[in-house]
Amino acid sequence: MNTQSIDNGYDCWLNYKYIEEDRLRNSYVESCAQITVIGESAVMQSARRELSLALTSMLGKAPESGSFPVSDSGIVAGTFGSSPVFDELAREYVIDELGDEGYVIRAMDNDRLYLAAATDKGVLYAVFHFIRLLQTGESIEGLRVRQVPGNGLRMINHWDNMDGSIERGYAGNSIFYRDGEFVGDKGRIRDYARLLASGAINAVSINNVNVHQQESKLITKQFLPEVAIVADIFGDYGIRLYLSVNFASPIEIGGLDTADPLAPEVSEWWMRAARDIYRYVPDFGGFVVKADSEFRPGPFTYGRNHADGANMIADALEPFGGEVIWRCFVYNCLQDWRDRKTDRARAAYDHFTPLDGQFRDNVLLQIKNGPMDFQVREPVSPLFGGLKRTNQLLELQITQEYTGQQRHLCYLVPQWKEVFDFDTHARGQGSTVAETASGRLFGRKRGGIAAVTNIGDDANWTGHVLAQANWYGYSRLAWDAGLSSEQIALEWIRMTFGQEPGLESVILEMLMSSYGIYEDYTAPLGVGWMVNPGHHYGPNVDGYEYSKWGTYHYADCHGLGVDRSIRSGTGYAGQYHYPVAATYESPESCPDELLLFFHHVPYTHMLKSGKTVIQHIYDTHFGGAERAANLIAQWDSIAEKIDGQTYRETRERLVHQAEHAGEWRDLVNTYFYRKSGIADELGRLIY
Amino acid sequence: MNTQSIDNGYDCWLNYKYIEEDRLRNSYVESCAQITVIGESAVMQSARRELSLALTSMLGKAPESGSFPVSDSGIVAGTFGSSPVFDELAREYVIDELGDEGYVIRAMDNDRLYLAAATDKGVLYAVFHFIRLLQTGESIEGLRVRQVPGNGLRMINHWDNMDGSIERGYAGNSIFYRDGEFVGDKGRIRDYARLLASGAINAVSINNVNVHQQESKLITKQFLPEVAIVADIFGDYGIRLYLSVNFASPIEIGGLDTADPLAPEVSEWWMRAARDIYRYVPDFGGFVVKADSEFRPGPFTYGRNHADGANMIADALEPFGGEVIWRCFVYNCLQDWRDRKTDRARAAYDHFTPLDGQFRDNVLLQIKNGPMDFQVREPVSPLFGGLKRTNQLLELQITQEYTGQQRHLCYLVPQWKEVFDFDTHARGQGSTVAETASGRLFGRKRGGIAAVTNIGDDANWTGHVLAQANWYGYSRLAWDAGLSSEQIALEWIRMTFGQEPGLESVILEMLMSSYGIYEDYTAPLGVGWMVNPGHHYGPNVDGYEYSKWGTYHYADCHGLGVDRSIRSGTGYAGQYHYPVAATYESPESCPDELLLFFHHVPYTHMLKSGKTVIQHIYDTHFGGAERAANLIAQWDSIAEKIDGQTYRETRERLVHQAEHAGEWRDLVNTYFYRKSGIADELGRLIY
Repeated sequence: MNTQSIDNGYDCWLNYKYIEEDRLRNSYVESCAQITVIGESAVMQSARRELSLALTSMLGKAPESGSFPVSDSGIVAGTFGSSPVFDELAREYVIDELGDEGYVIRAMDNDRLYLAAATDKGVLYAVFHFIRLLQTGESIEGLRVRQVPGNGLRMINHWDNMDGSIERGYAGNSIFYRDGEFVGDKGRIRDYARLLASGAINAVSINNVNVHQQESKLITKQFLPEVAIVADIFGDYGIRLYLSVNFASPIEIGGLDTADPLAPEVSEWWMRAARDIYRYVPDFGGFVVKADSEFRPGPFTYGRNHADGANMIADALEPFGGEVIWRCFVYNCLQDWRDRKTDRARAAYDHFTPLDGQFRDNVLLQIKNGPMDFQVREPVSPLFGGLKRTNQLLELQITQEYTGQQRHLCYLVPQWKEVFDFDTHARGQGSTVAETASGRLFGRKRGGIAAVTNIGDDANWTGHVLAQANWYGYSRLAWDAGLSSEQIALEWIRMTFGQEPGLESVILEMLMSSYGIYEDYTAPLGVGWMVNPGHHYGPNVDGYEYSKWGTYHYADCHGLGVDRSIRSGTGYAGQYHYPVAATYESPESCPDELLLFFHHVPYTHMLKSGKTVIQHIYDTHFGGAERAANLIAQWDSIAEKIDGQTYRETRERLVHQAEHAGEWRDLVNTYFYRKSGIADELGRLIY
Repeated sequence: MNTQSIDNGYDCWLNYKYIEEDRLRNSYVESCAQITVIGESAVMQSARRELSLALTSMLGKAPESGSFPVSDSGIVAGTFGSSPVFDELAREYVIDELGDEGYVIRAMDNDRLYLAAATDKGVLYAVFHFIRLLQTGESIEGLRVRQVPGNGLRMINHWDNMDGSIERGYAGNSIFYRDGEFVGDKGRIRDYARLLASGAINAVSINNVNVHQQESKLITKQFLPEVAIVADIFGDYGIRLYLSVNFASPIEIGGLDTADPLAPEVSEWWMRAARDIYRYVPDFGGFVVKADSEFRPGPFTYGRNHADGANMIADALEPFGGEVIWRCFVYNCLQDWRDRKTDRARAAYDHFTPLDGQFRDNVLLQIKNGPMDFQVREPVSPLFGGLKRTNQLLELQITQEYTGQQRHLCYLVPQWKEVFDFDTHARGQGSTVAETASGRLFGRKRGGIAAVTNIGDDANWTGHVLAQANWYGYSRLAWDAGLSSEQIALEWIRMTFGQEPGLESVILEMLMSSYGIYEDYTAPLGVGWMVNPGHHYGPNVDGYEYSKWGTYHYADCHGLGVDRSIRSGTGYAGQYHYPVAATYESPESCPDELLLFFHHVPYTHMLKSGKTVIQHIYDTHFGGAERAANLIAQWDSIAEKIDGQTYRETRERLVHQAEHAGEWRDLVNTYFYRKSGIADELGRLIY
């Protein structure tokens, strides 16, 4: 037993623990005594360094470095064509189908293990894959792995500001910036790039989509030399760097008097800006743009549409191979709570489907998973399946803005799985979000997934150590949405804490139950927004009820929920294809967990579960808080198996969660009891 | 008509307009052609300067400066005994009864006008009084004025921080500090002192009662030289300077490891601190202390009581004639909303009455007007009348924290009058707060009134020009609580805008109706706290309902209000003397406007007005918002008579108020309609 299993959490899942079990370790040592990594590019050097580090740590002995021509046994990693040694493998696989990022891992020729790909990046991914096999105790005998990513773009978005703060960050300050400048020591950025690469992340945007004054200058010569340094660090790990830009840049930093996308001087300005950027950062990925949203400037200012805006910038980037990632989070944020006709949930679809087919090939529309804003429970955005001739990018939120802010345990992979698996029926059954976002469904070359990161400069990156599972899980799903939540959790547990059966089952149970627990004691039946305004932490049932943000539940003494049906409501349900629209349209067929999102019903409405709405609220809140409290006992049961600091820090958060879940329970139950006047059937304490 | 009547509002009510009406002006000119002010102290020079400025401006001609021996006609101002010329007057009045601050104004000996007092300060007050007579068009023939202040201490509290911000400030930044230092140019402070002196304010504390790190150092040699400069400026106008201090100063700036009031090293530290202060500021007034309140340190930390804490500091100041002003705003601010037994309203009484008689003579307990915190409507604090052997200081809030933040018009003098006139019955009928706070009721030498100012560095001092009336009115009431709200308003209107009958009646009506209007569309029946947390602006019915601040209304689908009766509630009503306690104890005898403060009643409870509670809520909110909207028309009706800038700036605020009153109306009505399910009898629009 190793109580120093994860130290302070800095290494995350790349915690290369010495494999104590002799038989297992020896089985690895045989195949890994010698490594040969062919090629000297920066990416290939990263691969070689990582493989050597992992084997040395886990097997207790540095592998011999093989040289050309390679010896008969050991690991040989490289690109097809870099050595005749891969020729046989190349005959077996269709290299074109592997693409730029796919790879194979193959035991052949007795004791040889081949890690091969068409590109250096593919080899790096193969190396991390192979390391994972060792970390999770998999057999490597007769290995025959072929992997191709499910998404072309697998991106991380940072909402970091140059003053060092992070919008919606719950794990310290930015690792990129401090006091309006880039940090001097880039060591942590390098460590971060390595962690991203281990999950095959291939794109990162490093500043907040709300681009303030200082950040607007990131695309100017004032900051481009530093941007280039950071881009190089990511480049060493096969990751392209993107920047969020201010749509009004031509005015704010360019000195023009307009940012009209159809004004020639504006497009010229962006072209010059692109030229400057690529001079410093030849492999620059492109721009992320939040326009006409929550007081950000955009094409609407000039009477233009979002295709006008995105295409103009896309044309500037196109000659250099850059992309525009254009966010669809566009809605009226000055709504009147008295107005029950306007529906924020409709906004993205209403704004963007009329433009379908009008965007350039190097534009991707980044669409949040739900129509609102990363609530605990939302339906999937109808834009997936609504757009057919436009590149899409699914946006998820790893940082736990509405899901406990890394003080509550909430393993989000099950939520994301539901999104990926949601069938839009855009081309009949099987038209899942995984198929539409990737571009496969409509045969589009670009597509993928982006997510707002949950990391900061806390020693363990994510504040709550167990929140690292969300970071890890996101990258695994981005690669392969077919993986199960359990499998991802198990990998992460083993890689982070080591192979320890007692510990494994407990943490797995904690992770797998956590999203359900959090939903139970917070947001009943898809209602959403019952949080404190601004910081979004803690219960406040009316917190957003009379606001300008389009976020209401309309609870009165009779019932609650938002009528979004076609027949009598806002018509939002009609944005889905048949039969989804029909399912949501009627309270009878609408799934319980989304009932209040789509319908206003009495407290006495009977759910499919056989409970009334009000009793469901009481039961889930009492039950959820109780299960939250039980997490402490679960964690305590493995105290001996966890590093002391990690045990204590995590326990503190679990204790806070239990207490705070009690506050959620009491406040929500009291609110609805006071409002409905209906007593709990079980007579439990409501205030 | 003079449309430049108040310029940008900077001169406030010391707006010495030329008196256009010939007959009136000439009647003044006769008596004021020559002025003789006897004495050369700084205060006397202020008096001479002011008199000369006022007469020159209003009469259009500088008065001749008289000299010794004075001529037969004109104004003669000075202290008794400073010249034989006052001897006859001195025989007529009992100078001892005038005290340090009283004065007489007397026409005698044909054309002579005497302004006389026992002290220079009294003379200065006489001068301002005389000027006011001219500004308001009073006849000065046969004048016979004798004035003695109703309160010994008439204080202004500043909640200014040294970074320049003002806690609960709504009129710009501090006039004292910027960026952690005193401002360089002290001119505005001098202008401010003059305005205070015109209202006979005699004490000012210049920093926030929440004393942060930098402000803790105000009592050290780092800042005392500057404090002395500011104290001198105020001293020139007869005003003593006080500082708010941090109870933990011995630790935070003294390097001790305790602030225990019974530790000898702590009291020695305060004695040394006092010595230092008085070396720089010989007339220093003393300290204001907020201890054990809202996370401020205090004697409770050391298991001591507030008498221990206050007396220890008082002993350090006593040799120099200084005072300790100890705030009674002490309560549990980490309350549990589930706990209906703990009652914040009880806190001040419960904490301080057991200590009655234990405080030093140079300690004054500063008591907020109500038991909560400056709500629109509260009962009067039962500490008035509860304390019999302790000096008291009534604390009011001029700055409109809960009453519209100087964006809504709310003339507060009527509210304050109700406080002064409230009969505690502590020594039978007639034991008003005016009598207890002043010290008269129990024969105590010290007593008085303090208030948190509403001024900042806005050009017109108070943001909303009409809010100057609250500042002015406060000082007038502090001097003489017997003045009526109308009289004070009329004085202020005439002094500020000039004598203009059409204008006068309109502004008077606006001011006099404003508190009722504001109460109507915000806080029904004494309920309080239905505001947004933190900044306290705008409606939020549940804003403080589930908080830790002890601020609840317990609204459910049946009714609302807090049961504070003795029989079934928190017992707060029992903190009052008979018959007040009995009146509040029963819903039948409790005045409507405080019903929900003292009782939890059904929405269908019938008020004395003949309306149900719910209908009262609807009616007052519809009516209040309508009357708020009417203020614009009232203001517009005198547009021609008001300086353009003042007209426009004030109108903007009135327009905002009308709109915001509509938001209050809709939100509060909707909240209670949704909760009660009871429709408005008149079928008006509720959402």
